Amino acid sequence: MAREAARFQHQGELQFVDMLRRRVGVARGAGVVLGIGDDCAIVRPKGSAEDLLYTTDMLIEGVHFLRETHRAEDVGWKALARGLSDIAAMGGEPRFCLLSLAVAEWCDQRWIDGFYRGLLALAQREGAPLIGGDLAKTDRVMCDIVVGGAVPRGRALRRDGARAGDAIYVSGVLGGSALGLATQRGRAWKRHRRPEPRIALGRFLRERVGATAAMDLSDGVSLDLQRLCMASGLCAEIETPPVFRGATVDQALHRGEDYELLFTVPRRGRVPGEFEGVRLTRIGVMRLEPVGMVEWNGALLEPKGYDHLR
Amino acid sequence: MAREAARFQHQGELQFVDMLRRRVGVARGAGVVLGIGDDCAIVRPKGSAEDLLYTTDMLIEGVHFLRETHRAEDVGWKALARGLSDIAAMGGEPRFCLLSLAVAEWCDQRWIDGFYRGLLALAQREGAPLIGGDLAKTDRVMCDIVVGGAVPRGRALRRDGARAGDAIYVSGVLGGSALGLATQRGRAWKRHRRPEPRIALGRFLRERVGATAAMDLSDGVSLDLQRLCMASGLCAEIETPPVFRGATVDQALHRGEDYELLFTVPRRGRVPGEFEGVRLTRIGVMRLEPVGMVEWNGALLEPKGYDHLR
Repeated sequence: MAREAARFQHQGELQFVDMLRRRVGVARGAGVVLGIGDDCAIVRPKGSAEDLLYTTDMLIEGVHFLRETHRAEDVGWKALARGLSDIAAMGGEPRFCLLSLAVAEWCDQRWIDGFYRGLLALAQREGAPLIGGDLAKTDRVMCDIVVGGAVPRGRALRRDGARAGDAIYVSGVLGGSALGLATQRGRAWKRHRRPEPRIALGRFLRERVGATAAMDLSDGVSLDLQRLCMASGLCAEIETPPVFRGATVDQALHRGEDYELLFTVPRRGRVPGEFEGVRLTRIGVMRLEPVGMVEWNGALLEPKGYDHLR
Repeated sequence: MAREAARFQHQGELQFVDMLRRRVGVARGAGVVLGIGDDCAIVRPKGSAEDLLYTTDMLIEGVHFLRETHRAEDVGWKALARGLSDIAAMGGEPRFCLLSLAVAEWCDQRWIDGFYRGLLALAQREGAPLIGGDLAKTDRVMCDIVVGGAVPRGRALRRDGARAGDAIYVSGVLGGSALGLATQRGRAWKRHRRPEPRIALGRFLRERVGATAAMDLSDGVSLDLQRLCMASGLCAEIETPPVFRGATVDQALHRGEDYELLFTVPRRGRVPGEFEGVRLTRIGVMRLEPVGMVEWNGALLEPKGYDHLR
């Protein structure tokens, strides 16, 4: 099994992040609790009752969205939603955001207004005011959102907290974003354009459910669950997660941008069937080895999710 | 004079930032002390003895550097130096950084290694460990650095603190980066490739000099001083600042990327002639009106510095 597991040491992004972690080493003396490799970094200011969370997420024209099909307002919304989703995954409360925005020659005032309208609407709703950033002009739109958040000291939900025997859950139904991107119609398309960061759910998992680990599903459950397994030094056995109506099982397993939460709960933990209208579904269990492997209905599940370096 | 001053209400970036500030409004309840428009945003965590500083800076291939002339190591160094310079401008101490990096098809392992070598060397020297970020792949290299820092509560040096009668100073000699970009030779080229963030000087200005306002010279003294004037609701009269050997007065006044500090000091304040080998030179005085105007040797100085949206 060890050799089979080795096949799943996903190259590309995972390898890159590993290289970086080795080179950076352990950040000492600066109150850094958790560095590279989770949804957010965690910093503990001296004497503070809170841990601070930081995340950055890029959204690039031609990579993450197309000028022709994605409205400016949706691009602004999604840029921030991606960052907020990382705060949600740690069980955190968002506090502020900063935006670096490179506009392209083709961006007129109307596009820029729409972009900020979408971003600021979500920022206001979630209590994450825009407090700074940077501006540039280049040949395609590139934005990088920074979100700062907070959790009570030592209470952040991390990827490395799962234990053997923990139950694995997902929120919502998966594959909707991929379906929407393919059809550009209906609820699935809205799901793709305007993902909903699960902020309230993340807090609920931390405060009431006693989740042991969590992350957001940005790149597909097959790859994201593998990352959680690697971080926790475990493997996972799962069944098919709930599939968005009209989407394929493949879309639900391997395609990203659903921004639902993937989390683990102690064997005897109690998880309601839904939270604020979002289903919570048990899809499997964490096991000891081989580390990093995900088994789906008894067969190996290849981590075919979205790799940002491929 | 009011109509002449109106000519200097610089359009482009300044207008854009004003629009944003109006739309965002005052960020309430989140401990936000200072939002959009200064070198860093300032956040005050509940009960904290420190204010936290945040800044983001982009570095884009073809805009801020060229693949052909700028070595990978220098690009990594400069990406971080720009962010650290903003922390220096507030009199702050850097604590950590995050990096969003979009690599291009042409980036090989050697380039990426060099980039991180340059960035991490400076991060280690300045005590700002890399704790997170994001990765993507696109058609040109784009990086966005986030730097977090801290100052004692309420003590950050801001752009809006200057008072009429304050003396205006600059550190170092100006125009070197522009000269270096033009000649790609000697000390000027090194100055362009490896700017030195004035972290220790910034702290010295805050702790020992009692500076009333400060900012870093990233876009040229003519434009940057105008921004300081606008923020403080004042105007400025200056003489020619010290010029880098071989550079022109035009380069010293209007060209960016020197990353020296521009600061104001009370009329009777005492400023040494140098700090740790860097000259500190009085170049002028802050006046009441017309607001936003810079007078140079008795004539109006147009803000011809680098505008990121032109």
